[in-house]
This record gives sequence, structure tokens and C-alpha cells, in this order.
Amino acid sequence: MAEGSRQFGAGSLITVLVVGIGVGWLLSSRQALLDRRACDGAGFEDARQRFADESMRRLDLSPEQRRVYLDAWENGRRDFDLALGRMRPEIDGVFKRIDDRVRPILSPRQLAVYDRLEAERRAHMPERPAGGD
Amino acid sequence: MAEGSRQFGAGSLITVLVVGIGVGWLLSSRQALLDRRACDGAGFEDARQRFADESMRRLDLSPEQRRVYLDAWENGRRDFDLALGRMRPEIDGVFKRIDDRVRPILSPRQLAVYDRLEAERRAHMPERPAGGD
Repeated sequence: MAEGSRQFGAGSLITVLVVGIGVGWLLSSRQALLDRRACDGAGFEDARQRFADESMRRLDLSPEQRRVYLDAWENGRRDFDLALGRMRPEIDGVFKRIDDRVRPILSPRQLAVYDRLEAERRAHMPERPAGGD
Repeated sequence: MAEGSRQFGAGSLITVLVVGIGVGWLLSSRQALLDRRACDGAGFEDARQRFADESMRRLDLSPEQRRVYLDAWENGRRDFDLALGRMRPEIDGVFKRIDDRVRPILSPRQLAVYDRLEAERRAHMPERPAGGD
């Protein structure tokens, strides 16, 4: 037992392994939480992209099938944005009614965050088509 | 060194700790990946809910502020769904054009997955308002 102070039994080894697994789990969970928050707050366009990626994964598409799928959805997205763009004045009215209720109850610090979040959200809304009424 | 076979040096201990951290990280990462996939494939309504939760977290709202915020957004969602419901025939046309391109290139197995995914997605679309034209 000359090296007793630098040697450990099997029990210590198992303890250290369990602690290690716990630490690894916590570190990764923390990272996953930050990723999840970024993902949740990323807005509609980003959610749409992730939905398409996940759908293609679940469908197990070949590269050629992916090309057709993405192209069909890209065309669909354009048609959908065109329709949504025509609704833009109505949507702006909805946002304004929300702002009118929420902004007055916020502190100056919260208001700065709110305006940043909402500017990001609305930046992804399709524009009203030129010449449309 | 009588118990040499059941004892280990500091080096072994560090190795076991590192292995443990790695195993914990991998297990948690695997769980995070499954969670992420479920979240990515969950559709628009779910994404909208998670966006609201994340916005309220970033705004650091009090319970009373949360109540106003959620109520304002719930009203806004109803107005938005009403507008989107009036576009429903147009949106159905967009979905039909996508189906007409994608369905013919899928295998029977893929087609079954596609129809399930798309039925879920479309179930969350607002209905055309009764009495609308």
C-alpha cells in the first residue's frame, strides 16, 4: 500500500464514472436547452425550413426526390406568400391591435426587447405585392 | 500492492471520468436529437406556441403581464385565422399543386408517410369561415 494515496478501489472508479456521466449529461443538456431556445425564437421562416428538412428525413427521400420535393414546396411557398402578401394590410392591423394592448404594459427594458423580437418576426412576413390593392 | 488488481492510479481515474463525461454527453445529445426532431416536425400551431413561450421568457414578463400578452395574442390569432380561413380555397389550391408534383414520385411506403404528414399539417390550417364566399 505504498502508493495508497494515489490508488483507488473499484468502488471509487464506479463513482467517478457515474459522476462523469452526470457531468456529461448536464453539459449536453445545457447546450440542448440553449439550442432549443434559439430554435423556438427563430420565427416562422426558420420553422418552415426545419419542418421541410424533418419531413424529407421522415420520408427518406433520394437526392433526386429531394430536388423535386424542395422545388414543389418552393413554388408553393411563393404562391402562399403572394396570397399572404395580399392580406398584408389586414395582418398589419392584427399586429397593431396586439401592439396597442401589449406595449403599454411593458417596462422600457422590456419594450426594447419586444420591439426587437417583433421587428424580427415581421421582417419575415411577405410583402404586399406591387400594384395589388 | 496486495490489492493491485482491484486498485487503480490517478491516471485511470481521470480516464474513467473523461469516458463518463463522453458517455453522458452522447446519451443526452441523442435525447436532444429525438426531441428536436419531434419539435421540428410538429407543425405550425406548435411552433407558434413555442415562439410565444420563448418570447415571454425573453421579455421576462410577470404573471399579470403574461396574462395580457397571451390574451392579446390569442385575439390576434383568431383575427389572423379568420383572414387565413378566407384564403383557404387559394391555400388548398397551393397544396394541391404541391401534391400533384410530389405524390407521383414517391414509393407506396413513402406515400403513406407523406399522406400522414400532410394530413397533420393541414389539420392545423384554419377552416374557411361559415357563410364566406
